[in-house]
Amino acid sequence: MKKPIYFDNAASTKTDEKVIEAMMPYFGEKFGNASSVHVKGQEAKQAMEKARKMIARSIGARTHEIIFTSGGTESNNLVLKGLFWENYLEKDHIITTKIEHDCVLNTCKWLEKKGGEVTYLDVDNEGFVDLEQLKNAITDKTIVVSVIHGNNEIGTIQDLEEIGRVCKEKGTLFHTDACQSYTKTPLDVKRDNLDLVTLNSHKIHGPKGVGALYIKDGIKINALFHGGGHERNIRSGTENISGIVGFAKSVEIANTHRSVYPKLQNKGAKDVERMEKMRDKLIEEILKIENTKLNGPRGEKRLCNNINVSFNNVEGEAVGGYLEQKGFCTSTGSACASHSLETSHVLKSIGLTPVQGNSSIRVSISKFTTDEEVDFFLEVLPSIITKLRRISPLR
Amino acid sequence: MKKPIYFDNAASTKTDEKVIEAMMPYFGEKFGNASSVHVKGQEAKQAMEKARKMIARSIGARTHEIIFTSGGTESNNLVLKGLFWENYLEKDHIITTKIEHDCVLNTCKWLEKKGGEVTYLDVDNEGFVDLEQLKNAITDKTIVVSVIHGNNEIGTIQDLEEIGRVCKEKGTLFHTDACQSYTKTPLDVKRDNLDLVTLNSHKIHGPKGVGALYIKDGIKINALFHGGGHERNIRSGTENISGIVGFAKSVEIANTHRSVYPKLQNKGAKDVERMEKMRDKLIEEILKIENTKLNGPRGEKRLCNNINVSFNNVEGEAVGGYLEQKGFCTSTGSACASHSLETSHVLKSIGLTPVQGNSSIRVSISKFTTDEEVDFFLEVLPSIITKLRRISPLR
Repeated sequence: MKKPIYFDNAASTKTDEKVIEAMMPYFGEKFGNASSVHVKGQEAKQAMEKARKMIARSIGARTHEIIFTSGGTESNNLVLKGLFWENYLEKDHIITTKIEHDCVLNTCKWLEKKGGEVTYLDVDNEGFVDLEQLKNAITDKTIVVSVIHGNNEIGTIQDLEEIGRVCKEKGTLFHTDACQSYTKTPLDVKRDNLDLVTLNSHKIHGPKGVGALYIKDGIKINALFHGGGHERNIRSGTENISGIVGFAKSVEIANTHRSVYPKLQNKGAKDVERMEKMRDKLIEEILKIENTKLNGPRGEKRLCNNINVSFNNVEGEAVGGYLEQKGFCTSTGSACASHSLETSHVLKSIGLTPVQGNSSIRVSISKFTTDEEVDFFLEVLPSIITKLRRISPLR
Repeated sequence: MKKPIYFDNAASTKTDEKVIEAMMPYFGEKFGNASSVHVKGQEAKQAMEKARKMIARSIGARTHEIIFTSGGTESNNLVLKGLFWENYLEKDHIITTKIEHDCVLNTCKWLEKKGGEVTYLDVDNEGFVDLEQLKNAITDKTIVVSVIHGNNEIGTIQDLEEIGRVCKEKGTLFHTDACQSYTKTPLDVKRDNLDLVTLNSHKIHGPKGVGALYIKDGIKINALFHGGGHERNIRSGTENISGIVGFAKSVEIANTHRSVYPKLQNKGAKDVERMEKMRDKLIEEILKIENTKLNGPRGEKRLCNNINVSFNNVEGEAVGGYLEQKGFCTSTGSACASHSLETSHVLKSIGLTPVQGNSSIRVSISKFTTDEEVDFFLEVLPSIITKLRRISPLR
């Protein structure tokens, strides 16, 4: 079989060699439990606190405002359930959008069964939230506004600064799920008036099974894991030190593109610029295929690694299958929903019909993507579409 | 500084070299998201399913009855909260013991605030649950009985078969937290009539940040993480493949001592026997020090790697400090509670006074512990106790 060409980096990424190297000592050598008071515990704890500082700095937070979790799904569940249970006797309203990741939407659905009220904001045809609708939705019962930063399917980067301003004016908490955007576009908790931010590792060339949550000083939240009182009593459980160290290393390597912290602007920014150029080339060339439509915006407001297109009269699944025969790993939407036959809720929300939605593919590149891979993709795609359209029952 | 001699394996263990080796390909090479339909996703999924089978077989479960989590704390929170929210409209009662890990006790306390009723069973002076008290506690409102298998502080191994029989007779679910006992003493979900079992990796020379939950076929439970519907919709979130593969490798290496599955009885059993001999030597020799008391039972009903003793008229913290000067990492109780000044709830439950409780240390060995380390410990300990007693204000 051909060596796979991995164009599904929004699902997960290759762990960077330098990350693996950084993690190694924390398995067989520095294996202590960070809660232990002895030397083996303390060496684990020190590594963890160094990692915490790195991640905090990358988003303009203070070190103790970062807690470690098992990933984005846990962080998002913790935010919504934790804030709901902390506040439900006085407030019961959550505002989110129709294009969130399933872990936000399904948590909201669960909270609705527990007495919560949820408003799901509409988005426009590029996936942007309507600020007026947001303003009107906030009431004195609103606990939190949760908006995904960079959308995982169509790459739309929300204007967090504007949304944050609205939340501040209205006096409600503001959370963003930054799993896809982290290190790819600026995120600054002060500028954006963020109270909570979900981060994860395996989308940025770190290991799977680790994530973080920024929780602004002073915000009270119920724990999702009760237990030994780790992570300021917000997240109990023995900390995954090797994972945490690897996560921080992946952040250090990415160097937080366009960060407000000048020291952190080095190689990462170049990687992002390279991805943006590849992305734009891919979009431009793919759209030369007749009856093809880009989903999501163009330019700076799109994630540097995301391309999502609909091809008239073909099934996205079929395109993916033919592409895989040529060695390409792509997807038709989020990996989590890949076994579902339903049309993507994100594509529906930006106005696509079920037929259009099901004719879409997502291509997500990474810093490891080469020009040769992009060129080969653009070489094989048109003939696949032509062929599929010729045999399509949808024609 | 001296090379540390690690006698705190109940807190965490060194990851086995073979485990690290098994994990390696799942970082930089086989890094796919197990939910992706393409080849990179499928290679991840296959590794995960192989791991699931290994862990299922080790406790006599069927493969699909195992779901992966981030560790013991998550699994225990999931069991108790998940069953409570699944059943709370009809049933609201949970039975547990006074000697559970904090992640069970603090979850129960949280559920009490949400309308749950919790019975905390007493234990005898060796830490065993009273079956009569258990029988009397079960009502038609009881959702689940949750009893720790091998106690993390005093090593008491409960008779799961007997407890399971009671639960079956009374028609209530039975859960055990087997984090400390797993691979060290037999556990068979059929023989023991278990409905749910918490397992974790980093106590058995696997990586941190991964655990599992056995959920018997047909048992309905609310998710703790809502999202993409991973793990039979019970535990969403991208699976930590390298961690899962490492966990399964650590189980394979341990070979499930005295398992009901003959094929799995090899090297692991020898490791356990070696630890039992070391444990018994340590206990016997330590008890030769005057006014010293063993906490927890002796022999087969004690975890093979646990020693917990109280020394009259000294502070356990001081003993630990002096031991560390000689290179030994020990603890005074569970690592999670190591920053707390309160007397261990476990030691209190077996009848120790606060002064006795605070005069205790826990020594927990592993398959990597050597006879030389044990001998050196026994050489230095008596003079430390003598010295501390001489200067003790408690005298």
